[in-house]
Amino acid sequence: MDIMPGGVTSPKGFRASGAHIGIKAVKAEGVAPPKDLAVLVSDAPAVVAAAFTTNRVKAAPVLWSQRVVARQAPVRAVVVNSGNANACTGDRGLEDAIRMGEATAEALGVEAEEVLVASTGVIGVPLPMDVVLRGIPQVCSALAATPEAGEACAEAIRTTDTFTKQAAVRMEIGGQVVTIGGMAKGSGMIHPNMATMLAFLTTDAAISREMLNRALKASVIDSYNMISVDGDTSTNDTVAVLANGLAGNPVIAEDGPDFAAFCAALHALNTHLAKLIVRDGEGATKLMEVVVRGAADVDAARRLARSVTTSNLVKAALFGADANWGRVLAAMGYSGAPFDPAGVHIRFTSPGGSVTLMEDGEPLPFDEDQALQVLRESEVRVEIDLADGDAQAIAWGCDLTYDYVRINGEYRT
Amino acid sequence: MDIMPGGVTSPKGFRASGAHIGIKAVKAEGVAPPKDLAVLVSDAPAVVAAAFTTNRVKAAPVLWSQRVVARQAPVRAVVVNSGNANACTGDRGLEDAIRMGEATAEALGVEAEEVLVASTGVIGVPLPMDVVLRGIPQVCSALAATPEAGEACAEAIRTTDTFTKQAAVRMEIGGQVVTIGGMAKGSGMIHPNMATMLAFLTTDAAISREMLNRALKASVIDSYNMISVDGDTSTNDTVAVLANGLAGNPVIAEDGPDFAAFCAALHALNTHLAKLIVRDGEGATKLMEVVVRGAADVDAARRLARSVTTSNLVKAALFGADANWGRVLAAMGYSGAPFDPAGVHIRFTSPGGSVTLMEDGEPLPFDEDQALQVLRESEVRVEIDLADGDAQAIAWGCDLTYDYVRINGEYRT
Repeated sequence: MDIMPGGVTSPKGFRASGAHIGIKAVKAEGVAPPKDLAVLVSDAPAVVAAAFTTNRVKAAPVLWSQRVVARQAPVRAVVVNSGNANACTGDRGLEDAIRMGEATAEALGVEAEEVLVASTGVIGVPLPMDVVLRGIPQVCSALAATPEAGEACAEAIRTTDTFTKQAAVRMEIGGQVVTIGGMAKGSGMIHPNMATMLAFLTTDAAISREMLNRALKASVIDSYNMISVDGDTSTNDTVAVLANGLAGNPVIAEDGPDFAAFCAALHALNTHLAKLIVRDGEGATKLMEVVVRGAADVDAARRLARSVTTSNLVKAALFGADANWGRVLAAMGYSGAPFDPAGVHIRFTSPGGSVTLMEDGEPLPFDEDQALQVLRESEVRVEIDLADGDAQAIAWGCDLTYDYVRINGEYRT
Repeated sequence: MDIMPGGVTSPKGFRASGAHIGIKAVKAEGVAPPKDLAVLVSDAPAVVAAAFTTNRVKAAPVLWSQRVVARQAPVRAVVVNSGNANACTGDRGLEDAIRMGEATAEALGVEAEEVLVASTGVIGVPLPMDVVLRGIPQVCSALAATPEAGEACAEAIRTTDTFTKQAAVRMEIGGQVVTIGGMAKGSGMIHPNMATMLAFLTTDAAISREMLNRALKASVIDSYNMISVDGDTSTNDTVAVLANGLAGNPVIAEDGPDFAAFCAALHALNTHLAKLIVRDGEGATKLMEVVVRGAADVDAARRLARSVTTSNLVKAALFGADANWGRVLAAMGYSGAPFDPAGVHIRFTSPGGSVTLMEDGEPLPFDEDQALQVLRESEVRVEIDLADGDAQAIAWGCDLTYDYVRINGEYRT
C-alpha cells in the first residue's frame, strides 16, 4: 500500500482549517504566530469510530467526545485546540469542552452532539474561553477542501512537534476510488495503550459504523499502541476516523475483499503516522524499530517489543550509539511476557550494516567499530528471535536525549 | 529507631574486606584504583533470608545464590564483584559464578554451598576469571571486623554510585544489645519489584530462619520495592540478611515484642539504605518522596505512589523545578490503580515551603514564585490525598537529568 502526500482534505467532501487564535503565545515579532485551533468538517454526515486514552484521568474533551461516539449516530465535525489540554480542570473544564463543541456547531449550522472535541497542551490550566469562542467562528470561516487547508489544520494541532504529520492512501473498491487521509501529532506523553497522541482520519469510503469500528480497533493495536516516546500515557489522546461515503463505493458492511482492502489501507496510513510521531518524539534523534519474531503468541511478542522501546537504559544507550545489548535482554526480562532466555537471538541492523550479539541465549563476540557503524544511523532496528513459535510484533520508539530532559524540564515556563 | 553510623561489621562476629583486584580499569595514575571485589564473612554459621530480582532474565550469580538460599541451611559468606554483572553470559556465566563461590569457600575453609555470590556492572561480558580467582584469596586475607573493613567492603560493591552506602541500627532484645548493619549500592536499573540493587545486611540477632524471612519480606515491600531511579528492573538484584546469633538474645522464634522490635529496626535500616540509593540515582540532583494517603487499600496506594516516581515527565519537571502537577495526576491515572480523580488533593512541600495545587479534584490557582521556592530544594515531597480510605504508602524517586542521559549513553565505553 503506497503512502501518498495528502491529509484530511484528500478524500472527497472534507474541508479543514487551522489558524492562530491566541491560545499559544506569539514567540517573536516577524515569526509567524503558532497555529492553535483546527476545525475539520465533513460535508455529508459521517459514520465515526474512535479510540480514547486508557488513562483513568481523562481530559474534559475526551469525556465529551466519548459521549458523541457513544450516540452511534453520524458526526459532522471535529474541533481541536493546541496549547492547552483542558485536562485536570475540574467541572469547569467539562463545561468549557461542551462550549467548544457548541460554538463550533453554531458556526457550522450543525448540532453540538455531532462535533468531536479534542485538546492538547499543558495540563491543569483552564482554557481561555474568551479567546477560544472568538476564534472558532473565525477558523470556521476559512474552511476549505484544499491541500493547503489540510496542512493548516494539521499544523494547528501541533504542540512540541517539530514538523506537521499528515499523509493519505488510495485504493479502488467496487470500481470506485476510495481515499483515506490523516493527520496526527505527538510528541511527549507517548506510550502504548492508545493514550498517546491525537490522530484524525477522514475517508470518503462508504462503510458501516460497525465495520469502521472493527477496522480501526484492529489497526490501533499494531500501530499507535506499539509506539512509545517516554512511557507516559496521556490524559487526552484520541484517534478518530470519519467516513462520509462520498466515494460512492458499494457500502462495506461485511467481511470480504473490500473490507480487507480498506483495513490494509487504513493500517498502512496509521502505521505511517505512528512512526512519524515517534521519529518526532521529544528530543529524539533516532528511530528504533524493535521486531520480535518466533514468539509463542502475539501478545507476548507485543509486550516484549514494547518493553524494549520503553526502557530508559536502552533508549539512552541508543542515543550514545552504545551496543549495550544486555539492556535489551533485561528489558525483555521485566516485560512480564514469558520466554526462554536460552533461546534468544539478538541482532542490530541499520543502513550502516548489521551485527549479531546473541544466538541461542549465548553472547557472541562482536566488533565494536562495526556496532558503532550500525548504531550511528538515524534508524536502527533491533531484531529479536525467540525460536519459540510463529508470532511476531513490531514496536517503535526513540532515543532518550539531553533535549528530552530540556524540553520537559522547562515545558510550562 | 535511630540510624547510626556503621555497616556490615557493626554486629558481633562479622568480618569484611574490599579491594581493587583488576575487574574495573584503573582510571589514572595517582587516583586510587576502584575497588571491585568484596567479601563478607560470618564467624558463626548464619541463618539467611534473601529476595532476588523478579526479572525473567536472571544473572548467573542470582541463580547460584537462589540455590544457596533454597537449601534452608546456614551460610557463612558473601562474595560480590562490581564492574561486571555476569548476566546474559550463557552457560559459561553460571560456571563462573559457581567458581567464584568455590574459590571463596576454599580461601575461607567453608563449603561452596555456604557462599552467596553477587555481581553488578555491565551486562553480557564474561567475567575475567583469571583476575577474579587471583583476587579472591587476596581479598579474603584482609578480612577484618573493623569499621574500616566494612567501609572497604561497601566501597567495593559500587558501580556508578557516587558515595558509599552503609548504616547500622541497635536495639535491646531480652536484655542483650542486638545490632543490624547494612550496605547497599545503586544506582541505575533501579525500579520497584526487588529488582533494583544489591543490599547486604548482617545482624548478631538470634532469630529463626522463618522469622528472619518474614521480617525481610515485610520490609522489602515498603523499602527497596518503593524506590525507582529509571523504571528499569535489573537482572542481578539481591537483598540478603545474615543473622549469626552472637548477640546472645533469646532466639526470636515467634511473634511478639522481640520480633516487632527486630522488624522495626530492620525496616528503619532498609528504608534508610533505599533512600540513599535513590538520592544517589544516576544523574539525580533531587530526591522526590511521594506520599499517598486516604487510599482505599495499601496496594492501590503503593501503585499510585510508584507510578508518580517513575514518570519521566514528572521527573523531568522536578529537574526543571516546574510545578507541572498535572503530570502527577496523569501518572496516577495510568498506574492501573483505582481512584476517583474528583477526590484528589495534591500538595508539594519542601524545606522551601509548601504549595497546594489541587483540592477535591479542582485545580487551585497558585503562586509560581512560591512553587519555585518549594521545587528548588534538593528534597521535595509530593503529598497526595485521595479522601477514599485509610491506607497509605510512600515511594521515593529522583529527577531525570542531563547527567542520567550522559551516564547511560556512554556507560560501556
